[in-house]
Amino acid sequence: MPHPLDAAIALTPLGEGRFAGATTADYWNMAGPFGGATAAVMLRAVLDHPDCRGRPAALTVNYCGAVAEGAFEVFVRLVRDGRSTQHWSVEQSQAGGGITTTASVVTGAERHTWAHPMAAMPQVARWDQTPVAEGTVPVAWRKNYDMRFLTGGPRPLAPDGAVMSPVTRMWVRDMPLRPVDYPALAAISDAFLPRIFMVRGDFSPVATVTLSTYFLADAAALARQGDRPLLAVCDGAAFKYGFNDQSAQLWSDDGELLAVSNQLVWFKG
Amino acid sequence: MPHPLDAAIALTPLGEGRFAGATTADYWNMAGPFGGATAAVMLRAVLDHPDCRGRPAALTVNYCGAVAEGAFEVFVRLVRDGRSTQHWSVEQSQAGGGITTTASVVTGAERHTWAHPMAAMPQVARWDQTPVAEGTVPVAWRKNYDMRFLTGGPRPLAPDGAVMSPVTRMWVRDMPLRPVDYPALAAISDAFLPRIFMVRGDFSPVATVTLSTYFLADAAALARQGDRPLLAVCDGAAFKYGFNDQSAQLWSDDGELLAVSNQLVWFKG
Repeated sequence: MPHPLDAAIALTPLGEGRFAGATTADYWNMAGPFGGATAAVMLRAVLDHPDCRGRPAALTVNYCGAVAEGAFEVFVRLVRDGRSTQHWSVEQSQAGGGITTTASVVTGAERHTWAHPMAAMPQVARWDQTPVAEGTVPVAWRKNYDMRFLTGGPRPLAPDGAVMSPVTRMWVRDMPLRPVDYPALAAISDAFLPRIFMVRGDFSPVATVTLSTYFLADAAALARQGDRPLLAVCDGAAFKYGFNDQSAQLWSDDGELLAVSNQLVWFKG
Repeated sequence: MPHPLDAAIALTPLGEGRFAGATTADYWNMAGPFGGATAAVMLRAVLDHPDCRGRPAALTVNYCGAVAEGAFEVFVRLVRDGRSTQHWSVEQSQAGGGITTTASVVTGAERHTWAHPMAAMPQVARWDQTPVAEGTVPVAWRKNYDMRFLTGGPRPLAPDGAVMSPVTRMWVRDMPLRPVDYPALAAISDAFLPRIFMVRGDFSPVATVTLSTYFLADAAALARQGDRPLLAVCDGAAFKYGFNDQSAQLWSDDGELLAVSNQLVWFKG
């Protein structure tokens, strides 16, 4: 049996950059698949392409329309094959539903260069000293993550209607355990509660419209991390005119920044 | 005479989503046009499309290959026309050069919703009390910006080879004066010196591979700002394996967050 994440993002090559896949119940969200699983599908398609070289460096996913339960196709196109990077364009579509998702992916050769960490990992309690949170959000995909909240877990309305902090810090990993790889990182970059739920404490309709994840880890850094929890930090700077930003950092448990991710979220009211 | 920025991003409609444009000397960078001007071109093409509704909410630009001096074509496609958002796909190409740039744009209806600023503008000296910096970087586009550095302006190597702060804070606006609009914001989101120049103090080869700007301002907020300088803040979290992230915030001079922007930068060594 493959891991549920691998089952959710499995693709069958149809030739000439086309792949067939299907949503799975394990990664269902409220009214469609978990956006992180869709992000991982778009990345998986590039990694499965026979012309793909190097490791993922950047992934942008645009959530254009609802993905229905069932089969989808992914079409991958190598836009530009450069010496140091490849630029890929990806489209997910469903019969009768048109294009549901678009993505762009940049891959880059593995290189060892001058390196310097600027940001430092927040000092927090270790994951093995942080209790696992029960899933209080009634969506299927939640059970596939071991989440341990340091701050900013699911919470009720503030009694006085006050606006609360948009910051979440949590230890998170796939469940069942699975060594982290780039598709898993892509999925985790969307595994935060919508920030408007956090600041208002209610559940208004929301939808991620676009998400960009930059992978700052090489394959060796991911191998070092294995299946231990990542420290995932999430924030938002402004809510207005029906949209809010969301920024995230994913850290290895020994303090290396593995990925940064940003998204723009539509909210109803 | 149009403003140099408007001249640089002017497009002639060719029908069926195709537009013709050309690079201009005013926005030339080291070995191609200023990436911010290219970002503004990609956005301009969507705004010029007869089916475009609403205001820009998000712009992602992928810099796939070198743009040569001279003519280019931009092809715009409406991927999905939703009730609350439109998803656009854009490609820039040159004869003989293939696809040079791809972009995705999300537009959204103007809506007044619940709003809350989370991040606060850094407390800095006012723009009219901050001296205009002389352009020390030998690129043509620099002269089209009035830049006033509060911290993190161009600087030489640290005498001891120390790694310096990646943070820049500057007041910035178009020169000649021009009221800010979405294409101008898109351009300014790429108007920072590459962060690796800042932290190392040297000039190694760099290239933005992908840039995403989220527009958190409605048209009225931009109209309020007019042609006064924006406070532009820039940072980077990690440099390794040949890439670094760069994050930016663009604030109105009275403290409203107009846009956030992130990019992934390739560097050579």
